[in-house]
Amino acid sequence: MTDSPFAFGLGVGTHNQSGEWLEVFFPKPVLAPTAALADTVAALQSDTALSHDHLESLHQSLIAAGATEQAQVAAQFLDSQAPVVAVLLCQDSAPASVPEAYLKLHLLSHRLVKPHGTSLEGLFGILPNVAWTSEGAVDIAELGARQLAARLRGEVLEVSCVDKFPKMTNYVVPTGVRIAHTARVRLGAYLGEGTTIMHEGFVNFNAGSDGPGMIEGRISAGVMVGSGSDLGGSSSTMGTLSGGGNIIISLGRECLLGANAGTGIPLGDRCTIEAGLFVTAGTKVMLLDVEGMPSQSVKARELAGKSDLLFRRNSATGAVECLTNRSAIELNTDLHAHN
Amino acid sequence: MTDSPFAFGLGVGTHNQSGEWLEVFFPKPVLAPTAALADTVAALQSDTALSHDHLESLHQSLIAAGATEQAQVAAQFLDSQAPVVAVLLCQDSAPASVPEAYLKLHLLSHRLVKPHGTSLEGLFGILPNVAWTSEGAVDIAELGARQLAARLRGEVLEVSCVDKFPKMTNYVVPTGVRIAHTARVRLGAYLGEGTTIMHEGFVNFNAGSDGPGMIEGRISAGVMVGSGSDLGGSSSTMGTLSGGGNIIISLGRECLLGANAGTGIPLGDRCTIEAGLFVTAGTKVMLLDVEGMPSQSVKARELAGKSDLLFRRNSATGAVECLTNRSAIELNTDLHAHN
Amino acid sequence: MTDSPFAFGLGVGTHNQSGEWLEVFFPKPVLAPTAALADTVAALQSDTALSHDHLESLHQSLIAAGATEQAQVAAQFLDSQAPVVAVLLCQDSAPASVPEAYLKLHLLSHRLVKPHGTSLEGLFGILPNVAWTSEGAVDIAELGARQLAARLRGEVLEVSCVDKFPKMTNYVVPTGVRIAHTARVRLGAYLGEGTTIMHEGFVNFNAGSDGPGMIEGRISAGVMVGSGSDLGGSSSTMGTLSGGGNIIISLGRECLLGANAGTGIPLGDRCTIEAGLFVTAGTKVMLLDVEGMPSQSVKARELAGKSDLLFRRNSATGAVECLTNRSAIELNTDLHAHN
Repeated sequence: MTDSPFAFGLGVGTHNQSGEWLEVFFPKPVLAPTAALADTVAALQSDTALSHDHLESLHQSLIAAGATEQAQVAAQFLDSQAPVVAVLLCQDSAPASVPEAYLKLHLLSHRLVKPHGTSLEGLFGILPNVAWTSEGAVDIAELGARQLAARLRGEVLEVSCVDKFPKMTNYVVPTGVRIAHTARVRLGAYLGEGTTIMHEGFVNFNAGSDGPGMIEGRISAGVMVGSGSDLGGSSSTMGTLSGGGNIIISLGRECLLGANAGTGIPLGDRCTIEAGLFVTAGTKVMLLDVEGMPSQSVKARELAGKSDLLFRRNSATGAVECLTNRSAIELNTDLHAHN
Repeated sequence: MTDSPFAFGLGVGTHNQSGEWLEVFFPKPVLAPTAALADTVAALQSDTALSHDHLESLHQSLIAAGATEQAQVAAQFLDSQAPVVAVLLCQDSAPASVPEAYLKLHLLSHRLVKPHGTSLEGLFGILPNVAWTSEGAVDIAELGARQLAARLRGEVLEVSCVDKFPKMTNYVVPTGVRIAHTARVRLGAYLGEGTTIMHEGFVNFNAGSDGPGMIEGRISAGVMVGSGSDLGGSSSTMGTLSGGGNIIISLGRECLLGANAGTGIPLGDRCTIEAGLFVTAGTKVMLLDVEGMPSQSVKARELAGKSDLLFRRNSATGAVECLTNRSAIELNTDLHAHN
Repeated sequence: MTDSPFAFGLGVGTHNQSGEWLEVFFPKPVLAPTAALADTVAALQSDTALSHDHLESLHQSLIAAGATEQAQVAAQFLDSQAPVVAVLLCQDSAPASVPEAYLKLHLLSHRLVKPHGTSLEGLFGILPNVAWTSEGAVDIAELGARQLAARLRGEVLEVSCVDKFPKMTNYVVPTGVRIAHTARVRLGAYLGEGTTIMHEGFVNFNAGSDGPGMIEGRISAGVMVGSGSDLGGSSSTMGTLSGGGNIIISLGRECLLGANAGTGIPLGDRCTIEAGLFVTAGTKVMLLDVEGMPSQSVKARELAGKSDLLFRRNSATGAVECLTNRSAIELNTDLHAHN
């Protein structure tokens, strides 16, 4: 075996009444497992629940392979009422089953890979739409009967979410974060140490924040926010799934999106967009020179990825303007160099 | 009986300690029930819980009337610990009791009537304010004692909502939808097939989306969104309850409200409001002709309901402008025809 | 004892596995307890759980001191499985323990003190970050094991919040309010009678609304909203913790922040900011005279706290303008008086 395998996880999940996977929980996913661990599990199928006997023998093999932590997980799973699965991803290819897709989402939220660091091609087609309830994951087709049954017992089946993605915190809470309202962070989000997601914050899958950072706005799918950057309340980052087109939005370090602001271009480091201003790729922006005088008008997309910019709407003229800490002339030179 | 009755439902609900209804769940509401079914239940009172004997005899009558599905519901209710009620609405008049109000809200969320398709007059006066908890609906006056009792058992009584309206998904999840965060959709919302409500989306009662559509903004009470239309994150539609006055806002087909945008006028088909722009009825809008030159200034309310419009704020001059796919001259003619 | 003591509460709470407090619930907190009550509890330590014997003798002393309501609470606590604590705050000094901090947050949400009415100095340092779950408060370090254990039982441990502050409604629901989505109101919020917090509304600790009012926007930490004032959907009030600097934002009576609007200055009475407009302290505002003609340009911070102002962005020129019910000349005089 020349290449190290990509990832491995032992998971416990939920089946619908037809025995199809609805979701899988991997308590200890592994990136780049050892060859010994991989050899141990190579014969298992990544989409089939293990029998109790298979699990017992897997437990022994894992001990023999020196994979102590995984052996421990297997031992705990021996008591499980719910179906158990072992997933080995030899390569980082598109997820081919529900357990594979869930393992990849776990890798992101466990900080084992960064957004865009694993192939999620075809993910929406693989993931079933699930009712996430106070009794766990329920197949949509089975929900009505479950709700009625609960009512007849004098109870209510709480349905918190009807979606292909569950909330991250029911799977993992990474260290050193706060998430004021967990329904706003999907499994597959990447939250670096020191990230605080306030009530109005939101993080999609394959997206996140390096931390530290105060996130009160929306981090759309595919968007990454650098260290020390803050997103004000209701601020918006356009995602590739939500109108941002094929530009991948990101924010560098120490940026600030003001409250109710938004960006349709990637920002470099130390950029600010003032509260209430939405900068899209097509916004005409007047560059101001060091004296604060208008110097040149450019489309915002030409400023994509540049650092030390402050965007504001002139409250007397209504024009969108951009100031920079460095001289506008230097910026002009830079812009022209790319013409 | 000359007219067909309006609607019928068998429901199971919750009483407070004084025997007053807090809420009712109707698993299989019926629009325009058969005369046979209506005759069967005509003698029952729509606001009084059925005794076990009444329910048993209703069960037999429903079988005799050929109302198989309702008979099945009655059979299941025979096991219920909670109070059961049969509600017949002969006409679509204002709801007169909690069970009647809940039946009407169910009709909307079951897609049996569209928003504005049933009278909800006086609804706020009929519905009690309720604490929606992990133990079901609780009377506000009884909540403190319940919370303390839970604590003394070492548990927490989770209070998710204190409101006249519960979340829709604890009553019904219509087919073919996703709702990323269910607390944002009230019972009485209408979600057509193919509707996705993202985390930042919101749908009030008597409002909704024909679907398909991606809803990341707020659909206020009374607002209807046409097929293929998308609402960007935090976008706003003014409701008649929230400052929109007496204009009922709606969006036609294939519209787009950009992120953080808003509208205070109804839109026709294929209209776009760019991200970050709020168009109110009084906004002065400069119409641009086919060459993109300013042609005429109008109040936005004069553009209400028209199709093929693109609203933006000129980022160099700050003026709100409107482009159209058709010629501005044609639009002018149209506007003048209504003068 | 010359001064009346500041506050008292008997609480029941949660310990982590090391016996440290995670949170405390005070069903009946008292402001300015009687000297007799204070003397009774003066010897108890505010951060240590009471033994059953101590609680029993406290119960007797409370009866003797005529503190009937507190004696009743003590009697109920005698049955508690969870740790119990008695907290006497002789003075309103900075909170020194988790129970003290929680008592102060309760005083706010029980409407016993108003925002800024009690010292919360050092609060963030005192409060532990907690996982708020369907099994109650859980230490973050103990969460993984609890989640796995739930899974092995075929259940899911729902993690609703990972934060230093819990939701208010799991501690107290003050009379005469509606809160459509309770995750958006932190313990320590002050909601006056008649306040409705809609799904998009948010209230931080040490902040709130006098009520009545319809709150669909964000009340940041430290911000107070006067009687009869409404906050439109996604509207923003800058907090001292979130970029507002050292100006404390407040709204007077009968103000309206339009949907997606925002303010970085305190407003007086009867002020309106139109939908979509964000006024920051540095916004240049053109004052209009009674004829609606431009009269003078000022920074918004010069208008801080003034009444009867209407802020809008001119949709033809993009300029931020301010109209007033009174004459602009009078306002000018007023402004100049402060020069």
